[in-house]
Amino acid sequence: MSENAAINRQVLLVSRPQGAASVDNFKLVETPLAPLADGQLRVRNHYLSLDPYMRGRMDDSKSYAASQPLNEVMIGGTVGEVVESKNPKFAVGDKVVGTYGWQEFGTSDGKGLRKVDDTHIPLSAYLGPVGMPGVTAWLGLNKIIEPKAGETVLVSAASGAVGSVVGQLAKAAGCRAVGIAGGADKCRYVTETLGFDACVDYKAGNLYEDLKAALPNGVDGYFENVGGEVLDAVLPRMNAFGRIALCGMVATYDGSPMPLKKPSLLLTQRLKVQGFIVSESPEVWPEALAQLGGLVAQKKLQYRESIAQGLENAPEAFLGLLKGKNFGKQLVKLI
Amino acid sequence: MSENAAINRQVLLVSRPQGAASVDNFKLVETPLAPLADGQLRVRNHYLSLDPYMRGRMDDSKSYAASQPLNEVMIGGTVGEVVESKNPKFAVGDKVVGTYGWQEFGTSDGKGLRKVDDTHIPLSAYLGPVGMPGVTAWLGLNKIIEPKAGETVLVSAASGAVGSVVGQLAKAAGCRAVGIAGGADKCRYVTETLGFDACVDYKAGNLYEDLKAALPNGVDGYFENVGGEVLDAVLPRMNAFGRIALCGMVATYDGSPMPLKKPSLLLTQRLKVQGFIVSESPEVWPEALAQLGGLVAQKKLQYRESIAQGLENAPEAFLGLLKGKNFGKQLVKLI
Repeated sequence: MSENAAINRQVLLVSRPQGAASVDNFKLVETPLAPLADGQLRVRNHYLSLDPYMRGRMDDSKSYAASQPLNEVMIGGTVGEVVESKNPKFAVGDKVVGTYGWQEFGTSDGKGLRKVDDTHIPLSAYLGPVGMPGVTAWLGLNKIIEPKAGETVLVSAASGAVGSVVGQLAKAAGCRAVGIAGGADKCRYVTETLGFDACVDYKAGNLYEDLKAALPNGVDGYFENVGGEVLDAVLPRMNAFGRIALCGMVATYDGSPMPLKKPSLLLTQRLKVQGFIVSESPEVWPEALAQLGGLVAQKKLQYRESIAQGLENAPEAFLGLLKGKNFGKQLVKLI
Repeated sequence: MSENAAINRQVLLVSRPQGAASVDNFKLVETPLAPLADGQLRVRNHYLSLDPYMRGRMDDSKSYAASQPLNEVMIGGTVGEVVESKNPKFAVGDKVVGTYGWQEFGTSDGKGLRKVDDTHIPLSAYLGPVGMPGVTAWLGLNKIIEPKAGETVLVSAASGAVGSVVGQLAKAAGCRAVGIAGGADKCRYVTETLGFDACVDYKAGNLYEDLKAALPNGVDGYFENVGGEVLDAVLPRMNAFGRIALCGMVATYDGSPMPLKKPSLLLTQRLKVQGFIVSESPEVWPEALAQLGGLVAQKKLQYRESIAQGLENAPEAFLGLLKGKNFGKQLVKLI
């Protein structure tokens, strides 16, 4: 962390990955903080959120969301506290959620910034269950899967920031919730702490059979964060008229395309598959955040964080996230 | 055709395909017609419909619609005329659409039989644009693709019974309609007779580039009848928020599964893919048939038939259909 308040430390994207992303794609720089202009405010960021979608932004792709420009501060969600303000809408001490990216201080006119109350909800939760990951879970589950009581909802990366919320909301909706996670520890957390009915360890080497055993009634709704071999293994378990919310395919982000082995199952089982990006459905955020905030404040929604210390460790933590090394929502503590 | 009215000729499924279907899977038999019981009626079938879905029924699959039982008459849609009736709801001379399957005479209690008027609509059209294929087109287009004026709708097997209707309805909805068909003759028919804006010949060996040229604004709605390599080539042309109605994957019916090369495009373009079977949406049939019947009666909907002569030629005509040898709706004339 910076010792000098007049200096802002930032992480820039300086090159695009050829295949797998690496720490060499990033560069830590120190930049002097300019005095505020009228209307501006300055936020000391407490936490930076690291999320799989950032991998897509690192590529120079025309087909997805806008690329991250080279030699600029990496995008990302942040929470922090207003430390200086020449904007009448924000006072020093206000807690805010924004997208200041991978840097210790954010300076802006306040546009897109949201004041939050950390009395009953920890500030970091606004980057997790009461933030983008939580709304992602809410949207995919409620608007694409549309679960009915008694149905089975399956989610991959079940111990993660999105997956953990999907399963808990599915349980609350009266469904059987089943997770897929990497390793015995994560699976135990998914069933014992999050309360899923079952969890399959995809690293145990027996994915097809283990899924079959954990899904005696098949799958009605599948929330996909992973793609690749996991999706191939899930597809034969889908019931007729099943819905697949395609939220992420992290297995495919870092290399050559991974084919889907049996797309004909989409037809024979009359499945609906829908890809989505949560930022494109701003209309659902208020309802989703209100519900998720209530659940967290009442401690009815469990979540877990994996916190890297200091901006300088953000690149490595991000690369670990892409490989599933995190356990819970990946954050970087900046102060 | 049978010379003796007391004999019914039938085609049975006698074995299941190992890989590709063959004529050996079928057997032509002659069966005496039993006298009618009270409440029964007898129909002389004029036309039998041959459709790609029948290939799926030949397999012993648990995951799709019910299998065709061995040593029974192959299922299939038929149109014909009541020749004898002990059922007060049907009179000799009534024209009816039913599913009597691959046989010259149908005998039943009339359940599932629909009387039709062939004054303005030819009887055979009730197996095509004003029957199951037409409703399939209507359903996939209106309930899954939901086209808006100005959008581009693409359909594979565009000269076929379903595809030809999809494109014409899309044009009527104010869309740019583009087809994919096999061979220059079919493509010429699709643009010149059916009025599509463009048609790509998938046999010309330049599918990716030809699609790109025919789709300057990309694809908003894709109606898929083919699957396999055609689907792989179309996917990169899909616009964000595109909809794919998955109606058939005839390329994959006859052998090993064909993988989808880049499923990640479903996510990056936020696509919706939905498989469907028209018989599972009975609620849309009345509206769809009324609209399609009106268009055919007013000659505003063009269609073409490929007619095999005589029940004995049904197996070969069916195998040809699976390979795209037909040109327009494949029928078998039984009388």
